[in-house]
Amino acid sequence: MASFAPRGDKKELEEGSAFAPKFDADGLIPAMAIDADTREPLMLAYMNAESLQLTLEKGEAVYWSRSRQEIWHKGATSGHVQKVREIRTDCDQDAIILYVNQRGEGACHTGRSGCFYRKIEPNGSLSFTEEGRKFDPDAVYGKK
Amino acid sequence: MASFAPRGDKKELEEGSAFAPKFDADGLIPAMAIDADTREPLMLAYMNAESLQLTLEKGEAVYWSRSRQEIWHKGATSGHVQKVREIRTDCDQDAIILYVNQRGEGACHTGRSGCFYRKIEPNGSLSFTEEGRKFDPDAVYGKK
Repeated sequence: MASFAPRGDKKELEEGSAFAPKFDADGLIPAMAIDADTREPLMLAYMNAESLQLTLEKGEAVYWSRSRQEIWHKGATSGHVQKVREIRTDCDQDAIILYVNQRGEGACHTGRSGCFYRKIEPNGSLSFTEEGRKFDPDAVYGKK
Repeated sequence: MASFAPRGDKKELEEGSAFAPKFDADGLIPAMAIDADTREPLMLAYMNAESLQLTLEKGEAVYWSRSRQEIWHKGATSGHVQKVREIRTDCDQDAIILYVNQRGEGACHTGRSGCFYRKIEPNGSLSFTEEGRKFDPDAVYGKK
């Protein structure tokens, strides 16, 4: 498995062409998946070095599940894989954006197209921006 | 300063209207700022409870600077404040999206409109999607 470039100095990280991702103390980097066509944010998850490498190799989003502590090939259970169209990194290379084509009806395990389906109102409560579900999570993932 | 709702059970977190953000072991939650008009991702930064509360109160993005370990009112130095149009949270309420109007020429300290100005090529190197700078960082932030 290929490895990533060593972390260079500030100028190399910001202006260079070597991909030298920074993983945090838990070995993770945040990755925001965005629908490549609609530009709708789908989900924020995390990758470790192995899952980032697998994402690059497969062309499908592979995360690290913090709750299950395992490699998480998104869609392996649901069929809702994310075909990667483009990957971006930021100035200091400690965050990732995946522009993806989401297969199936949605990215969120609640049955919605994306996870960011609620906005915070001025009074501090949440209101739904996408009330209806796109699919039945019990049917896709099995009743829990 | 108002506090947030206590973390409820899975159903309350995912389907409820109480905002109960989850902060990590360092007391932080990731926040992706996205241009409210162009839908271009601008930056990924972090908030602690105080900076999230300040963001809600001021209507401008206030982050926690991990490098300086202090409250970071974005734009206080550069004038490049982010006027918050809408805030979203995700299914398990451990991530934030800010839809903002970016004041000034850009969000990134390198002088670009956003931080995600490089894409990862299939060979693993980086290529620039936004080569030119929108502003001179030395002029805005002072020569470092």
